[in-house]
Amino acid sequence: MSGIQRIRHEGLKNKIMSAEAAADFIQDGMTLGITGFTGAGYPKALPTAIANKAKAEHSAGRSFGINMITGASTAPECDGVLAEAGAIKFRSPFQSDPNLRNGINAGDISYQDMHLSHVEQQIRQGFYGKFDVAIIEASGITEEGKIIPAMGIGHANEVLKACDKVIIEVNDAQNALLEGMHDVVYDIGMPPHRKPINIIGSFDRIGTPYLECDLDKIVAIVLTSASDRNSKFAEPDDVSKRIAAQIIDFFDHEVKAGRLSKNLLPLQSGVGNVANAVMAGLLDAPFDDLLGYTEVLQDGMLDLIIAGKMKTASATALSFSPDALQRFNDNIEFLRDKIILRPMEYTNNPEVIRRLGVIGMNAMIEADIYGNVNSTHIMGTKMMNGIGGSGDFTRNGFFSIYVSPSVAKGGAISAIVPMVSHHDHTEHDVMFIVTEQGMADLRGKSPSQRAKLIIENCSHPDYRDMLRDYYDRAEALSKKLGGLHTPHILTEALSWHQRFVETGDMRIK
Amino acid sequence: MSGIQRIRHEGLKNKIMSAEAAADFIQDGMTLGITGFTGAGYPKALPTAIANKAKAEHSAGRSFGINMITGASTAPECDGVLAEAGAIKFRSPFQSDPNLRNGINAGDISYQDMHLSHVEQQIRQGFYGKFDVAIIEASGITEEGKIIPAMGIGHANEVLKACDKVIIEVNDAQNALLEGMHDVVYDIGMPPHRKPINIIGSFDRIGTPYLECDLDKIVAIVLTSASDRNSKFAEPDDVSKRIAAQIIDFFDHEVKAGRLSKNLLPLQSGVGNVANAVMAGLLDAPFDDLLGYTEVLQDGMLDLIIAGKMKTASATALSFSPDALQRFNDNIEFLRDKIILRPMEYTNNPEVIRRLGVIGMNAMIEADIYGNVNSTHIMGTKMMNGIGGSGDFTRNGFFSIYVSPSVAKGGAISAIVPMVSHHDHTEHDVMFIVTEQGMADLRGKSPSQRAKLIIENCSHPDYRDMLRDYYDRAEALSKKLGGLHTPHILTEALSWHQRFVETGDMRIK
Repeated sequence: MSGIQRIRHEGLKNKIMSAEAAADFIQDGMTLGITGFTGAGYPKALPTAIANKAKAEHSAGRSFGINMITGASTAPECDGVLAEAGAIKFRSPFQSDPNLRNGINAGDISYQDMHLSHVEQQIRQGFYGKFDVAIIEASGITEEGKIIPAMGIGHANEVLKACDKVIIEVNDAQNALLEGMHDVVYDIGMPPHRKPINIIGSFDRIGTPYLECDLDKIVAIVLTSASDRNSKFAEPDDVSKRIAAQIIDFFDHEVKAGRLSKNLLPLQSGVGNVANAVMAGLLDAPFDDLLGYTEVLQDGMLDLIIAGKMKTASATALSFSPDALQRFNDNIEFLRDKIILRPMEYTNNPEVIRRLGVIGMNAMIEADIYGNVNSTHIMGTKMMNGIGGSGDFTRNGFFSIYVSPSVAKGGAISAIVPMVSHHDHTEHDVMFIVTEQGMADLRGKSPSQRAKLIIENCSHPDYRDMLRDYYDRAEALSKKLGGLHTPHILTEALSWHQRFVETGDMRIK
Repeated sequence: MSGIQRIRHEGLKNKIMSAEAAADFIQDGMTLGITGFTGAGYPKALPTAIANKAKAEHSAGRSFGINMITGASTAPECDGVLAEAGAIKFRSPFQSDPNLRNGINAGDISYQDMHLSHVEQQIRQGFYGKFDVAIIEASGITEEGKIIPAMGIGHANEVLKACDKVIIEVNDAQNALLEGMHDVVYDIGMPPHRKPINIIGSFDRIGTPYLECDLDKIVAIVLTSASDRNSKFAEPDDVSKRIAAQIIDFFDHEVKAGRLSKNLLPLQSGVGNVANAVMAGLLDAPFDDLLGYTEVLQDGMLDLIIAGKMKTASATALSFSPDALQRFNDNIEFLRDKIILRPMEYTNNPEVIRRLGVIGMNAMIEADIYGNVNSTHIMGTKMMNGIGGSGDFTRNGFFSIYVSPSVAKGGAISAIVPMVSHHDHTEHDVMFIVTEQGMADLRGKSPSQRAKLIIENCSHPDYRDMLRDYYDRAEALSKKLGGLHTPHILTEALSWHQRFVETGDMRIK
């Protein structure tokens, strides 16, 4: 079933047009709600058409720039082409495209890095101002004009409501059997008229499988036939496997002590290779009937479900490598009643995460000796990708676990530093730091107690003496100044980053 | 009704003993759950008895130290005497006593500074280890042996359950009419068996007015007759009034724009003089039928209720000046059905705060030009009081507002700095910074946009040029290095604090 057949509503067929024609609805200065979440569910054709329009306008000496609020990161053919064309003025809440990142770090694009759980409610509350056009990807439209989402939902439900005009890309490369896998609640309401969110079990359905909007808002439908980004994951390497093994050992210990049941608690896994490796490690771990309650479902979690180790999973997007996409499509009949896709306001909601007791596992750029975590900035100033949902799960989860190899850039960067160069998750929120060197359990510990654990358990041997030296001298100085709660040498706290900027190496030569 | 008459359960009368005798149940190395929340509801007699025991043990050359988990801060006759006696080994989650603070900053006491919403669940989850003895203040005990809390609840419900032994101080200086004002839910459950918290309106009752525990656990009852700390608030000064006026103007603007209703949304107000002044300012503001959903109810909110401007308020503790306590007692018949006291797990719960859309207003030590806030540390190393519930409300509230005079110590310290010396609330969480100079609305803004607003609107004129100069040079440097998302000069970011440590003044002489 392809192309126009995916649009089962007769009237809406009249709205089909080319991406170039649809791009006419986009004007300079508009605020667009564009779907897309970690390389899934983003529009494939409109962005290029808008980028071309921007280039033409710029060539004609006219200004053209949009404010663009997505679910999360998209792909080269969305964020990439728009950034490259200089078409983005403001961007939120998460991104990972090289062109876009360069634009942000060159100061050309204003970027607000937001917790994903806050995005939908802040749109509704008007904190981003008026929304003009929603551009969303769908895998089809029903007879009644209901929209069948594709591989991700993100904030689609909210922007459909917030925007005056709606453009839908119907992508027939998406599996038609996605229909029915989504669970959309249209409106969580505005305070003081809100009710509890009725997700009691991680797989509870509380909505309908479709997105909806006033059909009069739909000004254009564009037909596409293109796969999602589908980047390949790295095969778990030795470092990732050692990180995964420690987390699994810890879970095992907790199960044996009776503090966790044998199916653990619902698992969240951040994006990227290391987080994916932890999921892969669970394939051979002694836990069964696992549950997923996560933002992005990647290869690792998919394979747990296919292998029968994970019973069900809830996410807002499916982000697969090409091989995993093949496995997903091959097994979709089996998977259809084991995976739910929800709006990000539900997958990342503090109420639900806390109630379910989700185990949050996320990658970090660096942690400091007191347990503060930097997820976003390189050397304090350069934006990498953004905080995404890591804060939602860290702050509200049963356990909050941060993972990273202990060094990067061939040893020139230590993931454990005296003070992180940017703070995304504070000492109050982070419970575990794990590197291939070991694990530090920070629960119920003072900063000094944490520092000793993190240095001894997690830092790379090349940096351990440097960290011990920093801590000892910080302690001696802070003793003199009466500040022994969190010993620091203010003139040195960020010196490792400065040294890297100057010499390309955090180590003292 | 005084002394023994407050204990209506016949059997429990046999447990009455002196504080000194009850202190015999406390042994070296024990973990104690001691009630107390911002100078209310803390035991008045046991701490001194334990402190004396500690001194005697230390004199005899024996070690004696306890791990002490409270609701929040207590008072000189609790935290103060225990710290002074060297009886505290570990302390969490919040404190404000000078002796205790000195012990923490001298490195003698390990202190974990925790979000208050996390404390009860982390006790239940076993993250603090085994609990031995609960020491709780009550205003009485019913015929059935149910415990009538006093002016605060905090974590009392949880420690009664977690501890093997319970010691109750029955304080007949507390108003007997407090009976019925509390709303206690005994058990929120453990994941994966949790249900939604059924607080839909800020004043909903979902529990019973009493605390309960297995009566066999009660090993001692001590009679006391002493008032809570009741420190005086400063009269709102000109600076506080200017801060309050701006917040009220903003609310007024939002009401006129139709984005807030005339009774706003439930208000949370942090502790201290400035927060109290904001509440005092609302007395003359054009809002009616206000609602309170806060952690600590202070003089300002009490006066709003007495004046008929605030309809109802929910809190976990009542923290009054001596005059306000008098007004509370004089009006308790009127106030009894307008104030609810709940456990801190409910007042500070992310689920409820987010659902209700609470407006969070908290004091800060400093903010940086990007909107990161330090609530806890002086010059990066010295603990002041702790994060308390500020993070719970900041992270989950409809608005998160931070207030401070723009300078402290006669102008020697700027509350706006290039980089905060400790991060408690990140750029992702903070929506408004307010000083007497002005207000910065950070919603939907990139770091550079925020920096300009905070410098121009909030900083003190004495520091404004210094901040502009820092930002301009940071921008120039970061442009060269390709890090214009969050421009910083790593070698200078903390130099203002360093200068203060060296010269006693952040200004360049």
